[in-house]
Amino acid sequence: MKQIALLGATGSVGKNTIQVVQAYPDDFRIVAFSFYQNIKAGRQLIESLRPRYVAVGTEKDALSLAKEFPKTAFGYGIKGLETAATLTEVDLVLTGLVGSIGLQPTLAAIEAGKEIALANKETLVMGGELVMAAAKQKKINILPVDSEHSAIFQCLQGQNQAEVQRLMITASGGSFRDKTREQLKEVTVEAALQHPNWSMGKKITIDSATMVNKGLEVIEAHWLFDREYSEIEVILHRESVVHSMIELTDGAYLAQLGASDMREPIQYALTYPNRKKIVPAQPFDFTEIGTLHFEKIDFHRFPMLALAYEVGKKGKVYPTIFNAANEVAVAAFLQRKISYLAIEWYIQKAVDEYNLDENSTLEGLLAVDQQTRKKVNQWINEGVYR
Amino acid sequence: MKQIALLGATGSVGKNTIQVVQAYPDDFRIVAFSFYQNIKAGRQLIESLRPRYVAVGTEKDALSLAKEFPKTAFGYGIKGLETAATLTEVDLVLTGLVGSIGLQPTLAAIEAGKEIALANKETLVMGGELVMAAAKQKKINILPVDSEHSAIFQCLQGQNQAEVQRLMITASGGSFRDKTREQLKEVTVEAALQHPNWSMGKKITIDSATMVNKGLEVIEAHWLFDREYSEIEVILHRESVVHSMIELTDGAYLAQLGASDMREPIQYALTYPNRKKIVPAQPFDFTEIGTLHFEKIDFHRFPMLALAYEVGKKGKVYPTIFNAANEVAVAAFLQRKISYLAIEWYIQKAVDEYNLDENSTLEGLLAVDQQTRKKVNQWINEGVYR
Repeated sequence: MKQIALLGATGSVGKNTIQVVQAYPDDFRIVAFSFYQNIKAGRQLIESLRPRYVAVGTEKDALSLAKEFPKTAFGYGIKGLETAATLTEVDLVLTGLVGSIGLQPTLAAIEAGKEIALANKETLVMGGELVMAAAKQKKINILPVDSEHSAIFQCLQGQNQAEVQRLMITASGGSFRDKTREQLKEVTVEAALQHPNWSMGKKITIDSATMVNKGLEVIEAHWLFDREYSEIEVILHRESVVHSMIELTDGAYLAQLGASDMREPIQYALTYPNRKKIVPAQPFDFTEIGTLHFEKIDFHRFPMLALAYEVGKKGKVYPTIFNAANEVAVAAFLQRKISYLAIEWYIQKAVDEYNLDENSTLEGLLAVDQQTRKKVNQWINEGVYR
Repeated sequence: MKQIALLGATGSVGKNTIQVVQAYPDDFRIVAFSFYQNIKAGRQLIESLRPRYVAVGTEKDALSLAKEFPKTAFGYGIKGLETAATLTEVDLVLTGLVGSIGLQPTLAAIEAGKEIALANKETLVMGGELVMAAAKQKKINILPVDSEHSAIFQCLQGQNQAEVQRLMITASGGSFRDKTREQLKEVTVEAALQHPNWSMGKKITIDSATMVNKGLEVIEAHWLFDREYSEIEVILHRESVVHSMIELTDGAYLAQLGASDMREPIQYALTYPNRKKIVPAQPFDFTEIGTLHFEKIDFHRFPMLALAYEVGKKGKVYPTIFNAANEVAVAAFLQRKISYLAIEWYIQKAVDEYNLDENSTLEGLLAVDQQTRKKVNQWINEGVYR
């Protein structure tokens, strides 16, 4: 019985994780979880999962839920997430949080010796150096939950690390892959939210369209698999059937493929190094898909991917700026405050104008994160670019 | 330094093996080899490789070459192949022989404790039970050299055997894949020899067109990977980029992909469990290939694949009959004695009319092999079907 703390229980990773856990009640139990705004869904989960501990967004929510569910302990904010992630009985922490908030609880969980199943890529984008060093010191596995990183991780099993010469991350191209940059000027929030292959949260769906998501994945892969950026390539693959690949020294590629089913990488992280049937199974037939396409990435069409490589190579606090600016800009786009192309513009501006003298300690990263958010929000409110 | 006996040195597997060996002279040395009809190429190889021992087809050839090359020992026939495969200094035997002649020297090599790199699929088609039992007893690796089986073998590394639920062998469909059965009535030898993706020997190129080759591969996979026929599937994949796949219990697929370069599986068998650069490398770019297709196999269009599953499941001497009838019929087709569709007809007839009372000992298998050849040759000479 693996006891799990699930951070971000009402999001799409959270929901899929709960399906996996409920399919194998003798193997997994969620003993703690967190949710933020979706109180209604959170309340249902408390009823069905009967967790030991729940972290919510605010003190007010914690207090009112504590009255309603006297058998469960409640906390809130970052402290609440950290408590959930470090409970004595927890074996594994699955972080399905969205955004930079994932970093601190993950670090706390590693310090407490918990295995990590990581869906929150911002954790490594911001704190890759800190997180991987802590995991190494504590001899903790960081198990990827993102389908691309899980694919690479699955391909790497049984391979000699020194014989892996390249990671190839596939990109669907997102909801606007067939639009020119000229056409992007006019796109709506609704259109942006139509991902061709995956059903995911809003923020990551927008990030797929801008390829900021792919950029974050490149940076995540850099840390997770200890690879130079020159060894990480992105390839456009519309069908998302090949979830990602590795190239070996002899020119052979190994790929992991299958249905676009988030339960597969989630379950693999939970059962690793073993596998189990997905229940209920999602049928998948190569011959029904028929055709797989592979295309070169056009970095002029997707400048945020080029920028992600750039901030990744610069390192230090740059990926934090890139990520924070993106979070603020995407939120503003979803609130219809700025246009789609303004997302890119604000990220580029934030990266270009960086002149803070912070180092990449946890405190330094969190400070840069906050300062970037403040600055980008200010620009947006001033209407610098719409 | 791995010392190699190369059976079938002048064929396409042999030539590619020599390229691999010559790229890494400090790692590999061919100390013995065999060739059959191509005396000119064989003589050149003796000069360049300076082997300890060479096996040829006939006593006459052995005697005349022995005079010419006094520093090399010569033998001939099955005994010659067995001697080459069992020399004391040999570490690994690579059998690139064509047809059923591969079985006896492979068994002899296993008995002598040599590692086996197997390109001769007929060895396992005929003698799968004997060969795998001997290899198990002697704790010998049978390393696949066929691109499909090497792909599966590469995907299986690091995986738990019990979590592999299916092997998926890809088939290009061969030179006539876009022809109807009606159109097959008129095809020529020249057209049959135009394989769309791989440059190989004549016999295997014809076998690709009839899919007898894919059938032999299914039977080989059954033995090599210890899998039921229901767990082995063939899928039509025109580009031969995905060399084969495995499906795991959680619905994930692992695939091995790359250039259609025979040196890759050959070299992997020689370097296993490690890998080395292919020298010179064959450039490969997914985005240049662009599109990969997958289609269901039409068993009415390719009845020999259905028949291969049938003889595989029946087991015992049936695969030997299937294989022997095919060898004779393909030779007759190449000599323009029979039509393309007659190949299938004679194989089916041989399997249908089998009523010999032989068991599947080595002697029994060899007897059935000989009797089938005799019978099919007789039918062909009588012109039963053209």
